Amino acid sequence: MRTIDWVDGAIELIDQTRLPHSVEVRRVTDLDDLIADIQRLAVRGAPALGVAGALGVALLASRFDAAKVRELAPLLRAARPTAVNLAWGVDQVLATLDSGPEAALAHALEIRDDDIAACVSMGLLGADLVRELTGKGRVRIMTICNTGGLAAVERGTALGVVQTLFEQGSLVEALPLETRPLLQGARLTAWELSRMGAPFRLVADGAGPFLLARGYADAVLVGSDRIAANGDVCNKVGTYSLALGAARAGVPFIAVAPETTVDLATPTGAEIPIEDRGAAEVVGFGGVQTAPAGTAAVNPAFDVTPADLVTAIVTDRRIVRPAAGQTMADVPLWQRRG
Amino acid sequence: MRTIDWVDGAIELIDQTRLPHSVEVRRVTDLDDLIADIQRLAVRGAPALGVAGALGVALLASRFDAAKVRELAPLLRAARPTAVNLAWGVDQVLATLDSGPEAALAHALEIRDDDIAACVSMGLLGADLVRELTGKGRVRIMTICNTGGLAAVERGTALGVVQTLFEQGSLVEALPLETRPLLQGARLTAWELSRMGAPFRLVADGAGPFLLARGYADAVLVGSDRIAANGDVCNKVGTYSLALGAARAGVPFIAVAPETTVDLATPTGAEIPIEDRGAAEVVGFGGVQTAPAGTAAVNPAFDVTPADLVTAIVTDRRIVRPAAGQTMADVPLWQRRG
Repeated sequence: MRTIDWVDGAIELIDQTRLPHSVEVRRVTDLDDLIADIQRLAVRGAPALGVAGALGVALLASRFDAAKVRELAPLLRAARPTAVNLAWGVDQVLATLDSGPEAALAHALEIRDDDIAACVSMGLLGADLVRELTGKGRVRIMTICNTGGLAAVERGTALGVVQTLFEQGSLVEALPLETRPLLQGARLTAWELSRMGAPFRLVADGAGPFLLARGYADAVLVGSDRIAANGDVCNKVGTYSLALGAARAGVPFIAVAPETTVDLATPTGAEIPIEDRGAAEVVGFGGVQTAPAGTAAVNPAFDVTPADLVTAIVTDRRIVRPAAGQTMADVPLWQRRG
Repeated sequence: MRTIDWVDGAIELIDQTRLPHSVEVRRVTDLDDLIADIQRLAVRGAPALGVAGALGVALLASRFDAAKVRELAPLLRAARPTAVNLAWGVDQVLATLDSGPEAALAHALEIRDDDIAACVSMGLLGADLVRELTGKGRVRIMTICNTGGLAAVERGTALGVVQTLFEQGSLVEALPLETRPLLQGARLTAWELSRMGAPFRLVADGAGPFLLARGYADAVLVGSDRIAANGDVCNKVGTYSLALGAARAGVPFIAVAPETTVDLATPTGAEIPIEDRGAAEVVGFGGVQTAPAGTAAVNPAFDVTPADLVTAIVTDRRIVRPAAGQTMADVPLWQRRG
């Protein structure tokens, strides 16, 4: 099952707000519905949002003339202003609009297929690298947040490597962190691991580094929202803590993300703005208030792991080793695998 | 308001299961009620449980003859078998039983007062040490779990130092971690800080080390459940992660606990058994199920911070500096302060 796809003339997507309690596929035939689904996080994850933008423009092109599509597309583009991939997907397909709706759809499907191919390549590169770095044929992997098929079209980034290891008979166990405050690990990653039949145990975020110290995992695999030129990795908050734990335990720490995540215009992680998402997410969960009324919070959504703690960055087209001194500019692009 | 006290011939205690939503003081006149309150965590925290054991025997002695008290006391002693302080408090007062009920009560009140005095002393020693180590007159403190008055009779250990800093005009802000899975930071510490009027902001556990890297706190203060002879500190899970973050950020990491927590019979943290509390606490949040049904978990309740990451241990009678190479045997006991 794909997270988002084009089926019989419309967009179909898994409603992630209903997971893990029920799997509902929504059929979207209307721009307003697509925008609402993006805003309420029914579809999320940078790669998946890129595909949503591309398919959204193709959907418009199948219903309206080019002038009307150009008028409506900015609404879709702005549905989540911080998601650069969404705007990128919209712009990619808008550029083909003069060749007609069939060409627009063909390009959107190409973007969808390219995302799948990138995830396949990352999975293969990452699985080989994990075996190489650990010197083990069968491994236990700690991870954070959701970086699986639900964040892409299918398979995903860091969790795609876990899936590849599982398919290759190399996965002993996955240890996903629950990932407060929004619990993407408990809600989404646990659901994906269950669905693929992989063995896993959930871990509270604060326990991750201690379990690394006690030898519970052979490697840490994480995704990334932005990779700076020097190899600093921006990702879901809690990632830095795992990197510290991995370094102290002598466990490889590997970030997995497509080439589109590499931002050579950002020299280091210090230049990446970190969004604070406010107190509401921290003082409770799912309608249950835990802290006293009026409690303030500091709630950075992301953190930055310095390059010296990053054993390797795996993209769909190369492996870079920041902890060994490599920057992103040091390693040329390869052909994709898969 | 004291967490637990002797008032007009009976025990009164704050029902911590109702916090932070309501403050209910329970009046306990019956052994069965006291045992039930201990088991359902209405009263918790090692020092508070010691006082509960002592006052419980005094309560029995005020109602029954010595033979009957000796028959009933083991039930109280066993209410929470892992809480060594509970058994200690029971045994202390049982030993005075032959001198009559007044002597038993007097000794129980002495234990209560001694707990208060120890907390006052830790607060004064700790606040001075924080200013010394940071070189600042006004500081921001990160902490984890609940180590305040609710874990003792009043004031507490690490949070008692925060309170002392606040009273001395030295606290800019406290940053308590929410402390998954049981959320003692969000529920209890946030409530205590609100009540004392101290400025604070709540932090998700995974964000703690990153906020240290970004300069949000001048020192980390934590409690301890057991301190090994070499200075390894066992405490609530998530503490080790903060210690790693503090070391990388060059921020002092200070454990605060009474002398009764120091266990010279345990050479290092490796010998401390770590309780796994099962999956139920991790797969949900405040009664809301978050992970798919049947999800397994690794749920260590405590972790161990190696001595080399511990800048200082503050007890009621000394300061030990493990990161500088001191073991617990290296530093003699002082007179208490306060």
